[in-house]
Amino acid sequence: MIVRKVSEAVIRRLPKYYRQLIALQAAGVERISSGKLAQQMRLNASQVRQDFNCFGGFGQQGYGYNVQHLLEEIRNILALDRVYPAIVVGAGRIGTALANFDGFSRDNIQIQALFDIKPELVGQTIHGKPVLHMDALETYIRDNGIRIGIIAARRSTAQDIADRMQAAGIEGIWNFAPVDVTVPGIPVENLHMTDSLLCLCYRIGHQLADME
Amino acid sequence: MIVRKVSEAVIRRLPKYYRQLIALQAAGVERISSGKLAQQMRLNASQVRQDFNCFGGFGQQGYGYNVQHLLEEIRNILALDRVYPAIVVGAGRIGTALANFDGFSRDNIQIQALFDIKPELVGQTIHGKPVLHMDALETYIRDNGIRIGIIAARRSTAQDIADRMQAAGIEGIWNFAPVDVTVPGIPVENLHMTDSLLCLCYRIGHQLADME
Repeated sequence: MIVRKVSEAVIRRLPKYYRQLIALQAAGVERISSGKLAQQMRLNASQVRQDFNCFGGFGQQGYGYNVQHLLEEIRNILALDRVYPAIVVGAGRIGTALANFDGFSRDNIQIQALFDIKPELVGQTIHGKPVLHMDALETYIRDNGIRIGIIAARRSTAQDIADRMQAAGIEGIWNFAPVDVTVPGIPVENLHMTDSLLCLCYRIGHQLADME
Repeated sequence: MIVRKVSEAVIRRLPKYYRQLIALQAAGVERISSGKLAQQMRLNASQVRQDFNCFGGFGQQGYGYNVQHLLEEIRNILALDRVYPAIVVGAGRIGTALANFDGFSRDNIQIQALFDIKPELVGQTIHGKPVLHMDALETYIRDNGIRIGIIAARRSTAQDIADRMQAAGIEGIWNFAPVDVTVPGIPVENLHMTDSLLCLCYRIGHQLADME
């Protein structure tokens, strides 16, 4: 499949299509029209068709999309037809929660180990995963073909951890530290949970409700 | 302060300014120019000045911003000059992690209780917070002046929980369930952690690196 110049907005919608299609499949729905899918996702039908056209279409005009087929296509586009061994740096509260989060396995994200420097954490096992010392980070990444590095550490150490991950051959970084890390050459997703909560406070404070 | 017609993009940047200013304050920085702040945040200086102009300015031309003053202004704009008692519905893995997350207290978000229907969870205490039965949800919200409802439940129950929260007087909803909930009349922030991870997989799969 040839994928050209897909906008950031379209990329951001792909996971939403993926989630919706998983729900449709679970509900036993076999076919769905772009109009119906759009309605369920609060988009408009032409938006859905335009998004899918970025990847060559998928559907038959006037006949709707085959849910199973569309799910597989989007799964492939999201590059979920392969496995991503992952590690977490930082075995604190967020790291522990991530190690225990089973929503990843279906998407082929496999967290294999956690890393920390605290003596009381190193050597422990969290939800079946070993906590190793940071000194072993690069060797572990190389020896185990780790592809995704997850940062659940402090602000002050996040960029250094990202640089070490990249130097060891990590292919992408998922960052939860409250600072944007940047590593030219590989993709980074900065996810700041608290930012979303602060936007909610703003909207409560300024009485900006959702309209429908 | 009169705040008019602030775009979604500006609102989304406010927490980033807030985080950066907290870091600057912690580092003992007293004044900062828009150029320097922009550089640190990977924005451009005119963008920063435009953003601040939405709220009336704050700075003195050519003299830079007082960090402490600017932090207080943005804190007030984010409506963090008040307290937001909160509850979490769903005492599973995400709910437990949220109950234990101390990044909230500085921002005046106070999680007071969790709710679930599972007999083995109801009556327990998670990180010092009681797990109550869902039957008590509305009464608890009303009796304790709960302002923020956090949904950490399954997809299938999320919208029903949101509707119950709103009916009981919740002012805003922070939703972690893997489906967008909508409640006309109050603000909702849908935070889908896995979406961000899937975008990372897409970018790894299509070799879309960060440029710098």
